[in-house]
Amino acid sequence: MIKLTLKDGSVREIESQMPAYEIVKSIGMGLYKAACCVKINDEVRDLRTVIDSDCEFEVLTFDSKSGAETFRHTAAHLMAQAVKNLYPEAKLARGPATETGFYYDFEVAKPFSPDDLTKIEAEMKKLAKEGYELERFELDADEALKLMEERNEDYKIELIHKHDNLGEALSFYKQGDFVDLCAGPHLMSVSPVKAVKLLSCTGAYWGKAEDGKQLSRIYGTAFPKASMLDAYLKQMEEARLRDHNKLGRELEYFTTVDYIGQGLPVLLPKGARVVQLLQRWVEDVEQEHGCQLTKTPLFAKSDLYKISGHWDHYLDGMFILGDPYDEEKECFALRPMTCPFQYQVFLNRQRSYRDLPMRLTETSTLFRNEDSGEMHGLIRVRQFTISEGHYILRPDQLEEEFKGCLDLAKYMLDTVGLLDDCTFRFSQWNPENPDNKYEGTPEQWEAAQAAMKKILDDLNVDYEIGIDEAAFYGPKLDIQYRNVYGKEDTLVTIQIDMLLAERFGMYYIDKDGQKKLPYIIHRTSLGCYERTLAYMIEHFAGVMPLWLAPEQVRVLPITPEQNDYAQSIANKLKSYGMRVTVDDRDSNIGPKIKNSRLERIPYMLIVGEKEASANTVTVRSRKEGEIPQMPLDDLVSKLVEEISTKAK
Amino acid sequence: MIKLTLKDGSVREIESQMPAYEIVKSIGMGLYKAACCVKINDEVRDLRTVIDSDCEFEVLTFDSKSGAETFRHTAAHLMAQAVKNLYPEAKLARGPATETGFYYDFEVAKPFSPDDLTKIEAEMKKLAKEGYELERFELDADEALKLMEERNEDYKIELIHKHDNLGEALSFYKQGDFVDLCAGPHLMSVSPVKAVKLLSCTGAYWGKAEDGKQLSRIYGTAFPKASMLDAYLKQMEEARLRDHNKLGRELEYFTTVDYIGQGLPVLLPKGARVVQLLQRWVEDVEQEHGCQLTKTPLFAKSDLYKISGHWDHYLDGMFILGDPYDEEKECFALRPMTCPFQYQVFLNRQRSYRDLPMRLTETSTLFRNEDSGEMHGLIRVRQFTISEGHYILRPDQLEEEFKGCLDLAKYMLDTVGLLDDCTFRFSQWNPENPDNKYEGTPEQWEAAQAAMKKILDDLNVDYEIGIDEAAFYGPKLDIQYRNVYGKEDTLVTIQIDMLLAERFGMYYIDKDGQKKLPYIIHRTSLGCYERTLAYMIEHFAGVMPLWLAPEQVRVLPITPEQNDYAQSIANKLKSYGMRVTVDDRDSNIGPKIKNSRLERIPYMLIVGEKEASANTVTVRSRKEGEIPQMPLDDLVSKLVEEISTKAK
Repeated sequence: MIKLTLKDGSVREIESQMPAYEIVKSIGMGLYKAACCVKINDEVRDLRTVIDSDCEFEVLTFDSKSGAETFRHTAAHLMAQAVKNLYPEAKLARGPATETGFYYDFEVAKPFSPDDLTKIEAEMKKLAKEGYELERFELDADEALKLMEERNEDYKIELIHKHDNLGEALSFYKQGDFVDLCAGPHLMSVSPVKAVKLLSCTGAYWGKAEDGKQLSRIYGTAFPKASMLDAYLKQMEEARLRDHNKLGRELEYFTTVDYIGQGLPVLLPKGARVVQLLQRWVEDVEQEHGCQLTKTPLFAKSDLYKISGHWDHYLDGMFILGDPYDEEKECFALRPMTCPFQYQVFLNRQRSYRDLPMRLTETSTLFRNEDSGEMHGLIRVRQFTISEGHYILRPDQLEEEFKGCLDLAKYMLDTVGLLDDCTFRFSQWNPENPDNKYEGTPEQWEAAQAAMKKILDDLNVDYEIGIDEAAFYGPKLDIQYRNVYGKEDTLVTIQIDMLLAERFGMYYIDKDGQKKLPYIIHRTSLGCYERTLAYMIEHFAGVMPLWLAPEQVRVLPITPEQNDYAQSIANKLKSYGMRVTVDDRDSNIGPKIKNSRLERIPYMLIVGEKEASANTVTVRSRKEGEIPQMPLDDLVSKLVEEISTKAK
Repeated sequence: MIKLTLKDGSVREIESQMPAYEIVKSIGMGLYKAACCVKINDEVRDLRTVIDSDCEFEVLTFDSKSGAETFRHTAAHLMAQAVKNLYPEAKLARGPATETGFYYDFEVAKPFSPDDLTKIEAEMKKLAKEGYELERFELDADEALKLMEERNEDYKIELIHKHDNLGEALSFYKQGDFVDLCAGPHLMSVSPVKAVKLLSCTGAYWGKAEDGKQLSRIYGTAFPKASMLDAYLKQMEEARLRDHNKLGRELEYFTTVDYIGQGLPVLLPKGARVVQLLQRWVEDVEQEHGCQLTKTPLFAKSDLYKISGHWDHYLDGMFILGDPYDEEKECFALRPMTCPFQYQVFLNRQRSYRDLPMRLTETSTLFRNEDSGEMHGLIRVRQFTISEGHYILRPDQLEEEFKGCLDLAKYMLDTVGLLDDCTFRFSQWNPENPDNKYEGTPEQWEAAQAAMKKILDDLNVDYEIGIDEAAFYGPKLDIQYRNVYGKEDTLVTIQIDMLLAERFGMYYIDKDGQKKLPYIIHRTSLGCYERTLAYMIEHFAGVMPLWLAPEQVRVLPITPEQNDYAQSIANKLKSYGMRVTVDDRDSNIGPKIKNSRLERIPYMLIVGEKEASANTVTVRSRKEGEIPQMPLDDLVSKLVEEISTKAK
């Protein structure tokens, strides 16, 4: 008798071993139809998995993250099958699910055209209707190579050769004539993949960008129901209107230039202004919270990174000036983070327990050598600026200071309007990480993670756990945000580090006269300014909160007779520190209003003869619509209030 | 009959050709004794030069820059003679005069010790007393090589081989047994070099730092009179007390760290605070002057620098990420200036004459790969931040905008207390520059230089001319400053550029509908923040003007009973935005006062029982001394006034 503990706590018993899908069927055919995969003892597995011992058992449908991934991974196979049917010479590279869909990379003689995509989509729908079942089978490495060689699948052959453990069997999935080397899991058949849409075709690299072979990548998405796909596509259409990578360029917040390079955006005056205002505010708030500002160099000799561990753990992510493998010559690297630089402030003289906590902060520019394929507007960039801080603490100060960091980050995210859509991730190490990613002993990791868990639980933080997502020196709380397309990135991070102080010999003299090692919190308060600006453009659809708007008010005289009055209003508002312009071009009021709207100016003040003679304005507010004939002084009070409260 | 026009305009006639020193003697023996060299038709020449045609004729003594250089160049030879007497195996490398003395580089088995310097100085004085005459002679290259080979002077041999025009004769100077390859000019004999002091011995490189041979450099200085040397040494002693490289570290404005690298200072919280305050002020003032802020990337692909010309003209000065000679792979460089990045703002869309002047400005971090031997504290660094702007103009706007830039720079330098000690240099091109340093045609250069000359003359700027000091794209007005030791560097620069717009295709549509090229002014308003901070520390001897002081006020309670009162004062001042601390440690008032003084806090407020009961403070101001029993409200008004007026 095998006992299955279901998610609701109930127990189901089966006589003898059987495949998971049989169990699901026995629970109910409706559930079987919706099932994408199962979770067995916290591990996501194929529905074909044979259950042969007591376990926790959960059925995952499209509503769950893993269920949707399985569904879309099968959609990727379905697309590959369609491509092979239409373009038999295409070679298969790799095709995973993504957060919102899937893609597959192919080697083809020429990139797919939009017409090709239409044909492939039609072929997919045809194949889905034919309803091929997916079959899983295993081969040893020699058999696997033989099969892939027969099919001329060069990339799969390379993958087999790279496979870590060649003694192990390799798994394949087959539907009709189509066969793919694949770890799964997959749906039982392709027939649920009816609502499918191919979205775009881009270039992609096999391996590293510089030396990799160029492939063609088709992006698509798939849903169990047409209505879900339609809703998604409509949402994407709306997202495109808010997309900072489009809107931010149109509104002249930023641009990019081919001959400068990918991931190196140029902030135009409007973008630079918002970032300047944000940075000043963040520095001021941090100072009120007892932080001390530093300004440290943007690059250093390799020697520094060898001490910090970045040279061993992060070399690929850094921009190197010189030859990293030539031990004779001076070699520098642009900094990927501020920590080892900021520690020098602590190290500048002997420190005592009375100097702690030492809260250091910097408006810090960092550099990460990311693949050019990863670049996206202001969100994924190679150079960015962040309010990065390091709090150097006595162990007894950890909990309070961590809480202070979290409160500060939440306050800042709330002020800029992003907090409500943030999620929290507790990023932990993976003791089994194959690349030796982590420093320190299991005991140190358990201690740091237990400390962080206690703090998060005490604070009732609702977090997900991310295994193998920690920094090499300690666990992190990551505050995540999604862009308009649903792609998630980290906005703020707060990390506990019990390791690096020793590497730099950072001791303090404790009350008892003993030399002791401090703990360090690595934290950002608002997060990368470029990314924050991008998310704000998307969240506010380009209409910045008044306190941050590069142009807060535009005065529009109806006829040239009101130009002087318009200018006097502008001067008055400027005397309160507001950013105001007058559109006194010789044109009708219609185009002036249209321009202001297109440029997302928060307040338009329309002044005609009536307004001029009564010392009033007619206000068009982005938030409140039209307010006719408002006395000028009332407007001033209203705007001053809105700015000083940082209203969203 | 040969006519000599003297500096006072008078004319002196000589019968036939004769050496300059004979003419000087005939003017007067007193002048002959003081003469170091002569200026013939604006060219500095040796006193031995034979005058054989009409010319302008000026006798230069130690009081003139060239005279002092000649004097000290002879002192350098005298030192080399002394070294060769004492250490015959020493090899001569190079030994020029500097602004305040001279040095000579030698190859020796082991570096000179302070004792060695004492011996060499004594030997110099002995040789000066012996009064050797200097003799000038010329050899052709073969003879010159033979002579230097006999003497084993390997470095001189290398210099002869490198000599551009081997057909030309090479000049040597000889005194006693000592012979040196040297272009001169020199004194007639070593006897005037009596007041001499050797100051230090450092390492130096022959050629480039990385591959050059290490030499020993002895620095010294020399004057015609002992009293002048004594005055100089006393002044140096005082300078050392203000030296930002010492005082700035002691006061914890900055530090440097070996494993980060030379020329990469770490700004500690006090230094970072001053720079933050300066930057905010500069950005705000610039904005009032119609500037638009930008934030552009700190590095770019080589492609950008190839367009701008920096790749051809400045490659050695840049930090390269990648291999600059590999055309296949992406290669980046850290930016040495902001121009080509900021131009992208102009290029972001089509511009018309109405958009000009476009005044762009950026708080811009730049990188220059200077030799490590050149590094000095915060003044000579490899990374620095500067308020760099580019004004894009119609030609008719040049004069007014240039004037605006100069006014802005002068206003800023005046506000930070440095203007009075600034000098102005009009840096021009050298059409004969052997390294092809300059872009553009002679006509373009003449036009740009004539325009700048007219502007400077109209504004009555009192400038020196620096030939071969221009940027590769145009002439510059450099505003120079000297550190405590008299070493001069550039603080602010304003440049006219009629060339780069074309390289980037920066056109605007003029009133007449034609595409036209704008002029560009490259300018800094305050100059590099690190350097400004250094000069301010030196100028104010560490006591910053109140508006910039990192800690403006420290409250010192005499006994713990006044701690609460002290705290209430601090809170009151903080509510006005002031940076205040309370020294409430359990110690006597004496050490508290001493600490505040050592830390150069502008205001100490001493509060005892009397002050607490009367709601007063006893003020110790760095500028005004002690003010007993000042009512607290009066103090607040006084400080608010001092801060808001940015009093120096």
